[in-house]
Amino acid sequence: MAQYDLVIKGGTVATASDTFRADVGISGGRIAALAMNLSSDGAQEIDARGKLVLPGGIETHCHIEQESAAGTMTSDDYYTGSVSAAFGGNTTIVPFAAQHRGQSVRDVLQTYDDRAAPKSVIDYSYHLIISDPTDEVINTELPEAFERGITSFKVFMTYDKMIVDDRQILDVLAMARAHGALTMVHAENNGMIKWMVDRLNAGGHTAPRYHAPSHPAAAEVEAIGRGIHLANFVDAPLLFVHVSTAEGARLIAEAQMKGQRIYGETCPQYLFLTREDLDRPGAEGAKFCCSPPLRDSDTQAALWQYVRNGTLAIWSSDHAPYRFDRSGKLAAGPEPAFTQIANGMPGIEMRLPLLFSEGVGRKRITLNEFVALSATNAARLFGMSDRKGSIAVGLDADIAIWDPDLQWQVTQSEMHDNMDYTPFDGMQITGRPVTVLNRGEVIVDAGSLKAQRGRGEFIKRAPFGIASTQSALAAELEPGSNFGAQIL
Amino acid sequence: MAQYDLVIKGGTVATASDTFRADVGISGGRIAALAMNLSSDGAQEIDARGKLVLPGGIETHCHIEQESAAGTMTSDDYYTGSVSAAFGGNTTIVPFAAQHRGQSVRDVLQTYDDRAAPKSVIDYSYHLIISDPTDEVINTELPEAFERGITSFKVFMTYDKMIVDDRQILDVLAMARAHGALTMVHAENNGMIKWMVDRLNAGGHTAPRYHAPSHPAAAEVEAIGRGIHLANFVDAPLLFVHVSTAEGARLIAEAQMKGQRIYGETCPQYLFLTREDLDRPGAEGAKFCCSPPLRDSDTQAALWQYVRNGTLAIWSSDHAPYRFDRSGKLAAGPEPAFTQIANGMPGIEMRLPLLFSEGVGRKRITLNEFVALSATNAARLFGMSDRKGSIAVGLDADIAIWDPDLQWQVTQSEMHDNMDYTPFDGMQITGRPVTVLNRGEVIVDAGSLKAQRGRGEFIKRAPFGIASTQSALAAELEPGSNFGAQIL
Amino acid sequence: MAQYDLVIKGGTVATASDTFRADVGISGGRIAALAMNLSSDGAQEIDARGKLVLPGGIETHCHIEQESAAGTMTSDDYYTGSVSAAFGGNTTIVPFAAQHRGQSVRDVLQTYDDRAAPKSVIDYSYHLIISDPTDEVINTELPEAFERGITSFKVFMTYDKMIVDDRQILDVLAMARAHGALTMVHAENNGMIKWMVDRLNAGGHTAPRYHAPSHPAAAEVEAIGRGIHLANFVDAPLLFVHVSTAEGARLIAEAQMKGQRIYGETCPQYLFLTREDLDRPGAEGAKFCCSPPLRDSDTQAALWQYVRNGTLAIWSSDHAPYRFDRSGKLAAGPEPAFTQIANGMPGIEMRLPLLFSEGVGRKRITLNEFVALSATNAARLFGMSDRKGSIAVGLDADIAIWDPDLQWQVTQSEMHDNMDYTPFDGMQITGRPVTVLNRGEVIVDAGSLKAQRGRGEFIKRAPFGIASTQSALAAELEPGSNFGAQIL
Amino acid sequence: MAQYDLVIKGGTVATASDTFRADVGISGGRIAALAMNLSSDGAQEIDARGKLVLPGGIETHCHIEQESAAGTMTSDDYYTGSVSAAFGGNTTIVPFAAQHRGQSVRDVLQTYDDRAAPKSVIDYSYHLIISDPTDEVINTELPEAFERGITSFKVFMTYDKMIVDDRQILDVLAMARAHGALTMVHAENNGMIKWMVDRLNAGGHTAPRYHAPSHPAAAEVEAIGRGIHLANFVDAPLLFVHVSTAEGARLIAEAQMKGQRIYGETCPQYLFLTREDLDRPGAEGAKFCCSPPLRDSDTQAALWQYVRNGTLAIWSSDHAPYRFDRSGKLAAGPEPAFTQIANGMPGIEMRLPLLFSEGVGRKRITLNEFVALSATNAARLFGMSDRKGSIAVGLDADIAIWDPDLQWQVTQSEMHDNMDYTPFDGMQITGRPVTVLNRGEVIVDAGSLKAQRGRGEFIKRAPFGIASTQSALAAELEPGSNFGAQIL
Repeated sequence: MAQYDLVIKGGTVATASDTFRADVGISGGRIAALAMNLSSDGAQEIDARGKLVLPGGIETHCHIEQESAAGTMTSDDYYTGSVSAAFGGNTTIVPFAAQHRGQSVRDVLQTYDDRAAPKSVIDYSYHLIISDPTDEVINTELPEAFERGITSFKVFMTYDKMIVDDRQILDVLAMARAHGALTMVHAENNGMIKWMVDRLNAGGHTAPRYHAPSHPAAAEVEAIGRGIHLANFVDAPLLFVHVSTAEGARLIAEAQMKGQRIYGETCPQYLFLTREDLDRPGAEGAKFCCSPPLRDSDTQAALWQYVRNGTLAIWSSDHAPYRFDRSGKLAAGPEPAFTQIANGMPGIEMRLPLLFSEGVGRKRITLNEFVALSATNAARLFGMSDRKGSIAVGLDADIAIWDPDLQWQVTQSEMHDNMDYTPFDGMQITGRPVTVLNRGEVIVDAGSLKAQRGRGEFIKRAPFGIASTQSALAAELEPGSNFGAQIL
Repeated sequence: MAQYDLVIKGGTVATASDTFRADVGISGGRIAALAMNLSSDGAQEIDARGKLVLPGGIETHCHIEQESAAGTMTSDDYYTGSVSAAFGGNTTIVPFAAQHRGQSVRDVLQTYDDRAAPKSVIDYSYHLIISDPTDEVINTELPEAFERGITSFKVFMTYDKMIVDDRQILDVLAMARAHGALTMVHAENNGMIKWMVDRLNAGGHTAPRYHAPSHPAAAEVEAIGRGIHLANFVDAPLLFVHVSTAEGARLIAEAQMKGQRIYGETCPQYLFLTREDLDRPGAEGAKFCCSPPLRDSDTQAALWQYVRNGTLAIWSSDHAPYRFDRSGKLAAGPEPAFTQIANGMPGIEMRLPLLFSEGVGRKRITLNEFVALSATNAARLFGMSDRKGSIAVGLDADIAIWDPDLQWQVTQSEMHDNMDYTPFDGMQITGRPVTVLNRGEVIVDAGSLKAQRGRGEFIKRAPFGIASTQSALAAELEPGSNFGAQIL
Repeated sequence: MAQYDLVIKGGTVATASDTFRADVGISGGRIAALAMNLSSDGAQEIDARGKLVLPGGIETHCHIEQESAAGTMTSDDYYTGSVSAAFGGNTTIVPFAAQHRGQSVRDVLQTYDDRAAPKSVIDYSYHLIISDPTDEVINTELPEAFERGITSFKVFMTYDKMIVDDRQILDVLAMARAHGALTMVHAENNGMIKWMVDRLNAGGHTAPRYHAPSHPAAAEVEAIGRGIHLANFVDAPLLFVHVSTAEGARLIAEAQMKGQRIYGETCPQYLFLTREDLDRPGAEGAKFCCSPPLRDSDTQAALWQYVRNGTLAIWSSDHAPYRFDRSGKLAAGPEPAFTQIANGMPGIEMRLPLLFSEGVGRKRITLNEFVALSATNAARLFGMSDRKGSIAVGLDADIAIWDPDLQWQVTQSEMHDNMDYTPFDGMQITGRPVTVLNRGEVIVDAGSLKAQRGRGEFIKRAPFGIASTQSALAAELEPGSNFGAQIL
Repeated sequence: MAQYDLVIKGGTVATASDTFRADVGISGGRIAALAMNLSSDGAQEIDARGKLVLPGGIETHCHIEQESAAGTMTSDDYYTGSVSAAFGGNTTIVPFAAQHRGQSVRDVLQTYDDRAAPKSVIDYSYHLIISDPTDEVINTELPEAFERGITSFKVFMTYDKMIVDDRQILDVLAMARAHGALTMVHAENNGMIKWMVDRLNAGGHTAPRYHAPSHPAAAEVEAIGRGIHLANFVDAPLLFVHVSTAEGARLIAEAQMKGQRIYGETCPQYLFLTREDLDRPGAEGAKFCCSPPLRDSDTQAALWQYVRNGTLAIWSSDHAPYRFDRSGKLAAGPEPAFTQIANGMPGIEMRLPLLFSEGVGRKRITLNEFVALSATNAARLFGMSDRKGSIAVGLDADIAIWDPDLQWQVTQSEMHDNMDYTPFDGMQITGRPVTVLNRGEVIVDAGSLKAQRGRGEFIKRAPFGIASTQSALAAELEPGSNFGAQIL
């Protein structure tokens, strides 16, 4: 009997820390050995000579089979979404399970379990979106969700049907702190956006291009500043998703410099597209409406900088697939006003190739930094590093084998999502995942899907575990007493 | 016939810029001459040898004959309030005319005119408090108020019955910008305060001392940061009143460093009292409940620093007189919870003596800086420098003659307001105004009131006139177009 | 007998604080009265209707009859220099008395007295340049100079023959602190400049245009940062002259924000010229060589900002007149290398008209700010406010009467210095001093000089008197002991 | 024949990125396999159950067999120094090879080769100290040293016999940039130190305790700021060694935030000792004299913060062993003045145990961060990651097996250096390396040395290879031209 089920031979393995030539022995779905010359007798063998053997990507910001508060469903369900992710080199996705107002968290999770379990081809978990943090939710339902291993959730500082106010954010943060959960926040100042929308509408400025000024940079910067104050006040960790401004990233960097547990994420669209894409003729700009909106080339350069130096440690697609037709972007008609366009764009399959090609390929980041951004940082922040996020003995054999030299051009026909366009159309890419394994099973190889529908597993995640620092609140209370503990 | 109605002889005159020995000739209520040896033949003469001849103080943050949203009236009306101000060296007051929800601004102004005109012994204007910025208010009533010379108004970022949200603040700021008005803001994060109050109540922490942690420093700092973003976004000037935190003052200083029209005010209570005063036994701490709350001695030192370097250019009392009895602080009973205590403390008569004694006397500030803080800066910021705020030919003869060496101790019996306590009780002071003139008329002399009830005049104020700078909003819009102008 | 020697009628007087219509009565060379309607019977009368009556300018950074360490003499002596200053609206100049290595300060002062006293047409003092701070200089000669009323001196952080090292700067600062003197510093990093000069020379890059990169912005920023550390270390005030970089100004602003006694000066060339002027054909660029060098238009905008907000409170010409011929700029031949060109440019007569026209005229600054920058700030910082710098009773009648509407074009033929070019040639100016009085005597009127050679007086200046703050050094030593005092 | 020479069984392996249970197979001195169950038949076996299997430490700041400019030799030679390092869990040391003025770099390297090769028990390289950067050194000798694999060097901003000036630093940085070397700098402002020494001496303050104020915090902060300017100017990487101030660390963090290649190191003495140790009675304080000096407990907390967040990524001992006798600390007699005391303290054996016990043990850092600080970061920064710094297939089998629970107390008798005191005497430690392997050979086990004298190998290091960013210098020169390249 073979010692290993499968051996990957001759590749170059990279972790967030190291790069080395090794064979990888897989047994029982886990990485059993990394070695110089691994005997593969009896085992399946993959020839990885000239290839990179990397941890499978972990995509932690994507909207899959999720309906908006208004009821619009994303075009990808857990099947097409997970397939597209797999082709993009990912082996785990963490989409959102969204609580809309009045909904019970229990029901929400049941709904998403019903959606994901029978369809996902790769492993998955959810972040809980909380739009209605009632006492019941805070004190009963969320602790139950934690118990199930759902240890992160998200709140919105904007959008009428999702917004929570500062007091509610503090409730969520304090609860998260107590249980060891990580809070994520969509940070844009709601008042500034609404005021701008009013003014633009009043002036008859409704074309897609006006989406950009309607969500000004200052709205994000203000909200990030406020979020940092709130998180610091109760000493809770906070992740700012889709950071799109240089000044916002700077605020996050400064908080980190002071030792606060503040984290930042950015996405390909903010590094590879600009608001000029919104100016395309006719309704074409609608394809590029997302929030926060695309910015400019100076911002791109600044965000690369913050990706390089680790300030923005999470790299996600914010895949929010709405087709360029009546089911999605053009629901309001062929020439929708910017306020009528579903926000978001697809990209789950392009997240890693874009970063590899433009990051590693152009020497903006190292291969190890690429691994960290693909998988390791997400595994750590979201409580999966006991099983996911690296190439190490004992971990799940979640592996993406990349051909670093393969050159190709982005077109929608190469994508595997249920979309009719890609915003990155026409870009030249060097490097691509060619074989992808999830728990030791080849799920993608040479452009073909090998995975069964529904083979993906729900991943129970660990609490967010970094030791706490000092809160601003504690400083308000009597030092040396346990008053702070009573309050928090 | 005498050339002058009155001549002040032999004093040392100080302006915000200069200090010089001169006689002052007054004619028709105005300063007609400053000269080395002014013939006073026929004129009334005041001997000011050994004295300082300073501009009468302008008190721009005080609550006089103002009812709260809940209906509680301050203990001082326009008579006692203006008398106390006059004894404190002031010749102009600018209290608030408060619009409560549902009220018409026209009615509000009529009400305050009815209160002030028959009673005030010194000149006056109002700032309009706006709690209900409807379209009618924004587009019709406030322009009318400007027309009347009421060119400043105030909004609150906290207090349930007064709070306006960020979008409303932008409406007010944009309107203010269009007309040349100055907006003032009480900046505290409402959510943080309410969250803390809930937690403190839940823990049974209701004594007056808990007022301080219920309004944490972070709440002020966050709100100041947000206010700066909002003001900068629409390129409107903004004055933060009663700044009580070092970090808040630093944010203001940084905005000024960048050229933004951001201004700061602080008050005696934040430099001369601390939150330890809230710890006094029994209900005594109630006397020291104000919002933002008293802080600590490190903050005092930092605020002095920001007063010295001009960051906090407005020095006001925030006189908010509620007696220590059933009519005021103890309305809820002899041992009120901190949430039941009317916020505020008296100080209109102590504002200048405290600053003189501790500022000029201890060489923390110069005499010219004292003058700037007493009157000149306020006159400039609030559109009165054509008549008020300095000792210069042609200006109203609003003059406070100070004995710089007079030593005295603060007690309530020396005060002229309608209060039963002073928070500064027992402090030793050096320096005091001994004779005060408003428009050339002696209104206080040697401890006696000389003024008739109702002699004060309403002062029509000029628009806030500093040239505008670049707005963040403009940067969002097309450069070179006039799109920004359409939006603003 | 007339009460006044001279009365200025009907003008608009402005101080750093106030603007008012008043007649000015002058008696015995001093301002005796400011009044609404001053009887001028018997007195000389000047009609100032429609004119501005401003304090005479105080020019505190100019090189007059000063030889360089290499022996080159400026083209202006105390006669032409002071005449040009007077035509530019100035009534006091404070040029440098430069100690070269090995020279006794006593001898230096005697030399400059011999130069100034017989020639200057306006009042004057000197700043002492110290290039050789021996024990004798520090302990004996400088205290003697202070005694004479020379209460400011300057050190260089660059230039081989003038440079003092950090330890010597500390010696000077500590001595200045002990006596109440103000230190000025030319802040550029010598090593960076010399390294760049070497590299540029090695590459054969010797044209005038290379003067700009040879003195990089980083050299100034570094040196300003270092200077702030040194001054703060011994708690001594420090004035950075000719600040030419946005980042340098920002460091000064931040020090001021922290309450340090750090001051900044800038000059017209940095606001009105750019390094592109160095690119003019042939040797023409030599006219624009000064150190620090001209920068770019972004820097101009930033420096205006720091002038507006008071960070850069001293506005000087840095008049350093070297003719565009063999005696000056072209001493090394008709096509000099940038290292062979005497550094500096003329401008003593243009300092105030440029600031008035571009500052007040274009509403970048107020008239009162103009007055502060012309005279008041300098008088205060350099110990002359007992006699100079404002229009106030008792001060010297140093007055410049401006026609605010007079339009003219800059040409060298309009200048009164001993130069053959002006770097501001061709600029359109609105506003000009038409009549200038020094101690009550008309010295310039309607384009004619009225003053006698040598009529200027030496002004004994007061020590720099702002109370000291905490030094970084003190923080190193035992709190509560007097150890710090022993060290300082 | 056995597949492996040696197998480490059952331990928990940690890298900078991952922690996992694995056996380690070693073959030919290299790590050949990491696997779940490695057959050790025939191989030597080490039982690591309950132990941590970590990369051997890389100590990159230590003074071994190095004479000072004055000729004093450290007490440790390459034998005792490397033995002590090995007992402290290290497998590589990079001491200094110091060029004194007038010396040829070739001779210096020959000298150190003669010292190290016959004695070192672990692998080694050198950093070159450059005190005399002549043209010959810069253009010929240093390129030769690089060729040999010595790719880092160090300069001093203080010490009379070692100091280089700013221009020389630029020469070194530019050369380093051209060849891909890393520059290290001892950053303290020489003038401030000398000025303080003068003042302290003048006051008769000569006891050891005055060493601290003689090297004030401001001296380090200033020099770090200057170094950042210099490095940024020529776009060269720079490592600040032994950072001892919060403000210095903050400057480094800000440079990193801007994307500059600025790095920071700190040492155990700055986290575990304070200047109060200098106050010990008699000459005892001499044991604690090092430069920069020990600071205070606030600084300790701040430095921990900067270690935690990655700002200070290099953790070194700065082992500088001078015995507490006539050969070292007391060379000048039993009561030496602070200026007569050799600077430095031992600690090469305590570097890792202290960080493990106080860092990992007290949850200030994670185990992975400990690994990064022990070895990985140094391997990367100093060009050794192809062979050293992690546990990965193909790397040298440099491994320290730690007992994480072993409790012990620091005493000099436990140390293996040639010293007579340890500054950490008496501290309680949890965790200790129990078995250490270098290139697969057990060199320390169960408290016994197993290694032969001279078995250590010289490690040829790779150039510093991170892609360059924009220099400030480039911004001074014409964009779009290759002028910058000519200059650099």
